[in-house]
Amino acid sequence: MTLAPPARHYEYETRGSQIYVDSFATIRAEADLAAVPVDAEKVAVRMIHACGQTDLARDLVIHPGLVSSARSALESGAPILTDAHMVASGVTRARLPRDNDVRCLLRDPLVPGLAEAWSTTRSAAAVSLWTDHLDGAVVAFGNAPTALFHLLEMLRDGAPRPAAIIGTPVGFIGAAESKQALIDLAPESGIDVPYLVVTGRRGGSAMAASALNALAQERE
Amino acid sequence: MTLAPPARHYEYETRGSQIYVDSFATIRAEADLAAVPVDAEKVAVRMIHACGQTDLARDLVIHPGLVSSARSALESGAPILTDAHMVASGVTRARLPRDNDVRCLLRDPLVPGLAEAWSTTRSAAAVSLWTDHLDGAVVAFGNAPTALFHLLEMLRDGAPRPAAIIGTPVGFIGAAESKQALIDLAPESGIDVPYLVVTGRRGGSAMAASALNALAQERE
Repeated sequence: MTLAPPARHYEYETRGSQIYVDSFATIRAEADLAAVPVDAEKVAVRMIHACGQTDLARDLVIHPGLVSSARSALESGAPILTDAHMVASGVTRARLPRDNDVRCLLRDPLVPGLAEAWSTTRSAAAVSLWTDHLDGAVVAFGNAPTALFHLLEMLRDGAPRPAAIIGTPVGFIGAAESKQALIDLAPESGIDVPYLVVTGRRGGSAMAASALNALAQERE
Repeated sequence: MTLAPPARHYEYETRGSQIYVDSFATIRAEADLAAVPVDAEKVAVRMIHACGQTDLARDLVIHPGLVSSARSALESGAPILTDAHMVASGVTRARLPRDNDVRCLLRDPLVPGLAEAWSTTRSAAAVSLWTDHLDGAVVAFGNAPTALFHLLEMLRDGAPRPAAIIGTPVGFIGAAESKQALIDLAPESGIDVPYLVVTGRRGGSAMAASALNALAQERE
């Protein structure tokens, strides 16, 4: 097979590195990041980059300890645990400081039976399988509000505490409420785990993955 | 290991099927889907579900032949080709009518060399490797504007035509322009391939995957 590129018909930037530079500059020119903690600015920029929406900034709530806690955990080799294979797929392995494990247990053979027995979603049941890996892990929810609620209930029951929680489940049923519950966890229970939340209905796997990719290393 | 569920602390819907039903009902109550082709209504609803934003409807541009062309292609066993592993990861295999192949060639060993030789992105170079599979395929762009531009240039150069193009690349550099170029392809060149586009900067892998999941079968 002899491959040749098609004739150039459109004018567009083809240099990947330049696309990143121009994208991040556009975001910084347009987005109001004043409410974002100083050390989380690159996290916010990368999340906006992933969704194409500068107004995401207004829905970001970031714990002041989020970046330092998540980054030092990853630099110590902590695993990333997530509720969705799409999130795991979106983590750029080359950015991980210690070739950290990235795990989604949704397809574990125990999950369907637990979900049935506990009358909950598979996404939530899978979170119970995180228990032995939770201590000091970086966890990310890019899909299921029930999974985030389930983790919060585990923490209230005394489960090991992760180093950071990326809370960006998406949707119309329970998403906003689960994220508010994460924000309220420390004030209500004293369990103070650094978090990042996109309030409201907005969220998703790309937001969770982009936050993880920004937390993985300081370099853009 | 004896597993027990955590004590229920929050009030939330835990039945997965009910979450879908309630979500889709909320979307239909709130979103203005009047401009969406009748047979694409479920596609729009599922895309809104994936991003949590009812105003997505106003940015959807859907070719009147999109649903019939994509669905009959998939029912005939056509492959799905996509620019991003996250999109491939988001396709619910159980919904595919013929256990269709879902391919992303971004990690093909030929890609880095082609991208270098052609001075373009890896995402774009990988699209050239689709050539032998393009005829009648369903293709989906959930990430890279350069990849969509590259396919449009291949089509103008006489490449085999896919059955449908899901055009939801995301971002600040080239995304809006690449999607407008897809809309303009038929009027400008006579190459009339049914498409779905989210105009503007918004887009991403979840939108592409949710569109594919809705196209895969009529049943919600």
